[in-house]
Amino acid sequence: MSLASAVSVVTEFRIIAGDQSLDTPLIAVDLDVLQRNIAEMAALAASYGVALRPHAKTHKSPHIARMQLEAGAVGLTCAKLGEAEVLVDQAGVTDILIAYPIVGDIKIQRLLHLLERAHVTVAVDTHQAAAALSEAVAVNDRILDVYLEVNTGQDRAGARAGQEAVELAVTISRMPGLRLAGIMTHEGHAGFSDPDQIATVAENAGQALVDTAERIRRQGIEVAQVSVGSTPASWFTPRVPGITEMRPGTYVFHDNNAFRHGRIGPDRCAARVVSTVVSRPSGQPQSHRAVIDAGSKALAFDPSSSHPGHGYIVGHPGATIARLSEEHGVVTLSPDELGFDVGDQVEIIPNHICPAVNLTDELVIVQDGHVVDHWPVAARGKVR
Amino acid sequence: MSLASAVSVVTEFRIIAGDQSLDTPLIAVDLDVLQRNIAEMAALAASYGVALRPHAKTHKSPHIARMQLEAGAVGLTCAKLGEAEVLVDQAGVTDILIAYPIVGDIKIQRLLHLLERAHVTVAVDTHQAAAALSEAVAVNDRILDVYLEVNTGQDRAGARAGQEAVELAVTISRMPGLRLAGIMTHEGHAGFSDPDQIATVAENAGQALVDTAERIRRQGIEVAQVSVGSTPASWFTPRVPGITEMRPGTYVFHDNNAFRHGRIGPDRCAARVVSTVVSRPSGQPQSHRAVIDAGSKALAFDPSSSHPGHGYIVGHPGATIARLSEEHGVVTLSPDELGFDVGDQVEIIPNHICPAVNLTDELVIVQDGHVVDHWPVAARGKVR
Repeated sequence: MSLASAVSVVTEFRIIAGDQSLDTPLIAVDLDVLQRNIAEMAALAASYGVALRPHAKTHKSPHIARMQLEAGAVGLTCAKLGEAEVLVDQAGVTDILIAYPIVGDIKIQRLLHLLERAHVTVAVDTHQAAAALSEAVAVNDRILDVYLEVNTGQDRAGARAGQEAVELAVTISRMPGLRLAGIMTHEGHAGFSDPDQIATVAENAGQALVDTAERIRRQGIEVAQVSVGSTPASWFTPRVPGITEMRPGTYVFHDNNAFRHGRIGPDRCAARVVSTVVSRPSGQPQSHRAVIDAGSKALAFDPSSSHPGHGYIVGHPGATIARLSEEHGVVTLSPDELGFDVGDQVEIIPNHICPAVNLTDELVIVQDGHVVDHWPVAARGKVR
Repeated sequence: MSLASAVSVVTEFRIIAGDQSLDTPLIAVDLDVLQRNIAEMAALAASYGVALRPHAKTHKSPHIARMQLEAGAVGLTCAKLGEAEVLVDQAGVTDILIAYPIVGDIKIQRLLHLLERAHVTVAVDTHQAAAALSEAVAVNDRILDVYLEVNTGQDRAGARAGQEAVELAVTISRMPGLRLAGIMTHEGHAGFSDPDQIATVAENAGQALVDTAERIRRQGIEVAQVSVGSTPASWFTPRVPGITEMRPGTYVFHDNNAFRHGRIGPDRCAARVVSTVVSRPSGQPQSHRAVIDAGSKALAFDPSSSHPGHGYIVGHPGATIARLSEEHGVVTLSPDELGFDVGDQVEIIPNHICPAVNLTDELVIVQDGHVVDHWPVAARGKVR
């Protein structure tokens, strides 16, 4: 029986069934769950009639980028130029959005080189960054597609939805060498809102983006793409009429933040940090403490938006990863927790899977409980 | 004028003086400050009459390991076998302490291979881990030096100081193939205590370790090394009579947690994350916000023990790195902060430098304000 069929009856399972001989810590990925997650998001996008342009920041893997394209994605999204270079050169991605401002001469020169090998769209949200891109592109007789990044409530980057974004869109549309191919927002704040409020926050963000697109069009400027992106908001924002594209990232693996929100179960969390119990201090109150070899260098230090601790140990709801140092996870055990002997292996769903993947050089691919492959995290650490 | 001489009059300076052309984010290291930090800790250890065995987790760099040995270190410390393999093979380290339990057959086999190339001491803190090591070592006709790890208040790993540690030491001393070369503690909890309490907490930990060593000796067991380690406690624990060795790590670079405690100034923080302002959202209240290209993938998410925010922007005490996502640092600016225009570069002292170094593949070495070299972080990501 494949695990993919098992998940309908088993809500919580370890993806590495019996193999306790792996050298840990490592990140294991259940191939069937991964494929199911990819297929279902593709189906969701199709049901909304929007294009799917997944964010590669979660997996940083040419293998998984290709799986997403084969499932119907129109292209990929990434944050940094270095990630785009890897995806173009190693995954054969021909259409990529860098959803991040390109600032500085070195990056602009790298972008010009990348344009020779792929269709690249770049986010802009300031006059300064757009002007520098325009000058470099025009000098080189090229046209660069840009998305104007719009702040719909996250208050991170982006021109504010409404008048500010409209004015910047008009300015950009007049800059030589730049083509305003669309506008985008990252409604990541929806995922951090109260679970009852996700839908409302996401839809408000989507509507603000659509309204901004309409106002720009009234200035006689074409806005072909109206793009949103955030896994927790995927069931809400893209169904706002006028949205044309979605860019979820985390859905390929999901994580503790996702299932604690109740949208999906731990059985949908495809990536697990496999860790070994390395110490089990004795005596009271130490008997309720176990130390695992997954610290912040394996799990990352990202907080959970909804749960205490630094990840969920599958099958052990009474165990809390209470403290992390770099190489130690200090686990506090409830009185009814059995086991956790030195040498035992556990599987952990990290709070946030993306930075955990960024800490490892490879993904250990598992099917039906057994290791079947190793995939490099080729875009790991590409912060530039 | 070299920066090393300048630090006596300038308490806060940027290490990259004029070069705004670097592709960011990156970690820059001021070579003169690094050399001064290394020399001063070596002098401190000498003044106490204790051996210095620095922890390599901070730099993960064969270059810096060699500098520490040349300054008089008796050997290196590391957390993981993978780090030890790099230091032995790339830095020529011949004497190394793995201050972490070795658990699992794969790791034991790797350890046996490493023993052929270097003198390796391993921490043990459970009967199970010691027994497995003993069996493997004895079968191979070898002797393995071990340090018993003792918990002196950190409540992470380690047998509790006193009776529990004495009993485990007796047990280990009878195991074939193992030689109890010493006992060790990591008094890391001292650095997280109230600044006024660091000395007391550190000295209590050191005294508990010395007392435990004495009790073990009364059982007729030799305890040659009594080893402590923690940069914030370096000025206190090693001066407890009976301590023979110290293992500080962070001192080579120092970080925000260190200077916020008042022990050292930002001028002693040798490693900086150099970052570029990539967005400067306009309008109120957005005018007080800047976005930099150093997020949690450059700075790491470790909290500060004494200061809000995710690092200190050198020269900008009124700027707070209020929020991090993977590629964005959201900076909140006080009304008197000028500048922070798109394209500006800033230098950040991370809260915790060790995990930040673990996120980058190379250190950019700077002297007198100019880049002079690039050193690989060869033991980055060696979590196994």
